[in-house]
Amino acid sequence: MPRSQQQPKQLGLTRMLDQTDERLSQQLAFLTEIDKLKSVLRATTLCDGSRRENTGEHSWHIAMYALILAEHAKSPVNIDRVIKMLLIHDIVEIDAGDKPIHGSHDIAEMEAIEQAAADRIFGLLPEDQRKELRALWEEFEAAESDDAIFAKSVDRVQPVIANLETGGDSWLEYNVSRQQLEDRVGWKVAKGAPALWQHLQARIRNWFGARAE
Amino acid sequence: MPRSQQQPKQLGLTRMLDQTDERLSQQLAFLTEIDKLKSVLRATTLCDGSRRENTGEHSWHIAMYALILAEHAKSPVNIDRVIKMLLIHDIVEIDAGDKPIHGSHDIAEMEAIEQAAADRIFGLLPEDQRKELRALWEEFEAAESDDAIFAKSVDRVQPVIANLETGGDSWLEYNVSRQQLEDRVGWKVAKGAPALWQHLQARIRNWFGARAE
Repeated sequence: MPRSQQQPKQLGLTRMLDQTDERLSQQLAFLTEIDKLKSVLRATTLCDGSRRENTGEHSWHIAMYALILAEHAKSPVNIDRVIKMLLIHDIVEIDAGDKPIHGSHDIAEMEAIEQAAADRIFGLLPEDQRKELRALWEEFEAAESDDAIFAKSVDRVQPVIANLETGGDSWLEYNVSRQQLEDRVGWKVAKGAPALWQHLQARIRNWFGARAE
Repeated sequence: MPRSQQQPKQLGLTRMLDQTDERLSQQLAFLTEIDKLKSVLRATTLCDGSRRENTGEHSWHIAMYALILAEHAKSPVNIDRVIKMLLIHDIVEIDAGDKPIHGSHDIAEMEAIEQAAADRIFGLLPEDQRKELRALWEEFEAAESDDAIFAKSVDRVQPVIANLETGGDSWLEYNVSRQQLEDRVGWKVAKGAPALWQHLQARIRNWFGARAE
């Protein structure tokens, strides 16, 4: 091969390596930034009641919930998409904090804060990945696709089980009534995974029944 | 439809509902059991050095690592399988505890403990899921398939980055030399994701170089 043809090739290789390095720098900056999710505390405690759960470990746990409970989805789901959705669904909490389901919030203000958080945090990634993960997060938030509806079910049911295991830690703290549990949690679980919500009825009835006596 | 045909159908439906309830009981027992992974502490600290990382949040973080870094895998991987593998890869630590990569262990004894842990914990699931997750975990442990080799790379590189971010928290604690880092960590990262290990060389050189002065 004549020399005149080698040079552009070498330049091309150098450029490719530079691009790989640039992408890795952006990707590792994102992965280091999201480490902060491990320091965002939720209202729910661990199942042994020892401490509050953080959003990083919560994200792992509900990805496992989805993997194990996929067969109970009301409509067939793409479980691989659901898992990815759940891995990233709460990343905005690094800036926005957790908003307990039984707390009270200004919804419009919260949404604006979360959108800004999504801009900043997903914005650390290379453009193709930023767009892909942002779209997946928006789909989860919209809660309209079958995948998102099931993902929401799973996200809502895990704290119910933590409460049943701990004797109602966050239900007591937020003074939750059975009606409020149905209004804020139950219908969302049932919408995506009806058999799962049905299955929990006896335990929920017992807990609220014992408190009413 | 004559009555004589309705009865078996109703019986069939009852049996189906019973089976769903039985599966859900087993699945929720498993999901509650693995909550304990959030209380298993690792040698590595969070990137801000504030506390030790637990294995639940670590499992989330490396699933995110795999998702974001998949393009750098040495051989093409099925990223959905890799993510599932990483979500479950450390579940045995509920019984076996974490074994720091820079610590010293009786490998045969550790393997026996982990096998017993896998028997017990995956054994909580319905048989089909028990077999599927056990096989995926065994594949990770064997570190022979392309998916497992990449999963191992990701599992090994995350503590390196936490050390670079914190100024070497667990490297100092375990008195790690640059050679030991290469022997126990580097070649495993490079085997599954060579560009990733290459990319980190400058930062690693700087850290160990500053200590040698």
